Amino acid sequence: MRNSREPNGSNSGSGKAPAVIGIDIGGTKMLGLVIDETSRTVVQEKWPTPKGAPEIVNGLAGLTADLVERTGETHEVRGVGVGIAGLVDSSGRLRRAPNLVDSDEFAVRDLLEPNVGLPVFVDNDANCAARAELHVGVAQGVKHAVLITLGTGIGGALIADGKIVRGAAGMAGEPGHMLVDPAGPQCVCGLKGCWERYASGAGLAYLGRRAAEQGDLSAVVENLDGDLARLHGEHVTRAGRLGDPQAAAVLDTFAWWVSVGMANCAAMSDPELIIVGGGLVRDWDLFGPRVGVYLNEVLVAAEHRPPIRCEPAVAGEAAGALGAAFLAATETGVLR
Amino acid sequence: MRNSREPNGSNSGSGKAPAVIGIDIGGTKMLGLVIDETSRTVVQEKWPTPKGAPEIVNGLAGLTADLVERTGETHEVRGVGVGIAGLVDSSGRLRRAPNLVDSDEFAVRDLLEPNVGLPVFVDNDANCAARAELHVGVAQGVKHAVLITLGTGIGGALIADGKIVRGAAGMAGEPGHMLVDPAGPQCVCGLKGCWERYASGAGLAYLGRRAAEQGDLSAVVENLDGDLARLHGEHVTRAGRLGDPQAAAVLDTFAWWVSVGMANCAAMSDPELIIVGGGLVRDWDLFGPRVGVYLNEVLVAAEHRPPIRCEPAVAGEAAGALGAAFLAATETGVLR
Repeated sequence: MRNSREPNGSNSGSGKAPAVIGIDIGGTKMLGLVIDETSRTVVQEKWPTPKGAPEIVNGLAGLTADLVERTGETHEVRGVGVGIAGLVDSSGRLRRAPNLVDSDEFAVRDLLEPNVGLPVFVDNDANCAARAELHVGVAQGVKHAVLITLGTGIGGALIADGKIVRGAAGMAGEPGHMLVDPAGPQCVCGLKGCWERYASGAGLAYLGRRAAEQGDLSAVVENLDGDLARLHGEHVTRAGRLGDPQAAAVLDTFAWWVSVGMANCAAMSDPELIIVGGGLVRDWDLFGPRVGVYLNEVLVAAEHRPPIRCEPAVAGEAAGALGAAFLAATETGVLR
Repeated sequence: MRNSREPNGSNSGSGKAPAVIGIDIGGTKMLGLVIDETSRTVVQEKWPTPKGAPEIVNGLAGLTADLVERTGETHEVRGVGVGIAGLVDSSGRLRRAPNLVDSDEFAVRDLLEPNVGLPVFVDNDANCAARAELHVGVAQGVKHAVLITLGTGIGGALIADGKIVRGAAGMAGEPGHMLVDPAGPQCVCGLKGCWERYASGAGLAYLGRRAAEQGDLSAVVENLDGDLARLHGEHVTRAGRLGDPQAAAVLDTFAWWVSVGMANCAAMSDPELIIVGGGLVRDWDLFGPRVGVYLNEVLVAAEHRPPIRCEPAVAGEAAGALGAAFLAATETGVLR
């Protein structure tokens, strides 16, 4: 990580309040916001995510300029934090981005910095979400935690001694691609039997289709006119919410798989808290209680260690952008 | 962790050189040594490991007294570090010890400290081995690393930002019980399909027996008069060393499984170095090169990240005792 260029968070000669921008780049939208030195969000806006790396840089520059302009009368923006789905290295380069168009090996920081004239700091979206939980969410005061984002795939972050572990190349926190089944299905990453084949949104769809092929989940299949290719995770959760017992059985299997990967993370890092974020957290009430039960069954020596709390993330839709802003705020000295 | 009782590592009024004891408790023997403030080993000795927790405490107290006496003319021992195979919590209690007789929930520190009249510090044996590699071995100057011990089972340690991660309860670093195969065999820990069922000494024996049941490994089976229950990992490595191609095939499968667990650890923690210790490291030349190849195949986005070095531990048989001594030396201020 780089040294801050502005070691001092106090007001500058301009009399304006110091602030930073945080932007989260998702597959379809970019969410940008400005926070001040009290961590308060001053403004927030959403832009669509452009397709391709050069277009994303232009979009980020435009969104940054807009946010600077909207807050310019009262605030002085000192830096930009960017959270992005994929493997980001410590130089701020996106190495591999399965969910963005043509964006592997995308030097986000080096391209954006000259464009916006502000220091830019880049990290993985799950690391940013973890930062948001550490600052204003369920991980406040927690020393050892794991964050798991259950979305289309699975992201993650490792917190040790109160800090995000970024790893040797900045690429720590990719639990979704732990192998959990050598006989498992092909993953988008090119490997087989990755945890996210079972425990993500795509994983829930896979488990649903597998159940349907075995003759279960009949009500859901009927609604889809028998077209299993159209079966998504949402079909299972919706049916589960309506009390369909076959959907509940699929959600139970799903909860087992979620707990398997959590236990694998916990065996290595011994967290006191596992934070669950991502789109599927909306349906936490449908599978979370079973995760709590299974985690105790699949975690080594569970009866000899303090129970691990398992809690949904609270920073919400803006978690990634907020965490990116906290990254920039810490690096520039706007927040300590 | 506790504050040191002797913040100053310099010579005391006695004129003797400050020193600490390190003891590693294995399933069959205890290795004890004394190091001075230059990290030099002054004396070293081995005692058999007694059976049962009270007997181990007596043994540890006897070994400590002997080491103090042998160095008493020239050195003043300031503390005792103990490394022990099993899950050790941050209060120095051994919570679960599959390889020691009747030693679950064994309060090592609280029982030993009044007995020896010295501050006692306890950690898992793999964490101690990692400490030895950080101080005098292959991990000197390394920020992010994973240590794996391949013995009867698998132990481990996680190094982040140059420090051992002990976790919320002090129980981090148990990669051997990550689930890697839901259809896998029963583990000694009570779970199924744990990594150490495939990638430890016991795992190599399992893979050997599985191959033999399928009609392979015929030369080895013949030597055992067909008694597969007697087939151990050593039979496979010995045959492999003699050029038996069927044993080489089993070692190749073994290398794949070793790399799977390594990749799982690396996906979460992004190390620059994976250190391989434990008894099987003697045969590293037989399977290590294949681990290097497979690790690149099973690690997510390997082509987008710097290569991870994979190296055998160098601290040798005394690694655990040496690391326990470094723990005590750091905690008491004998070493900085």
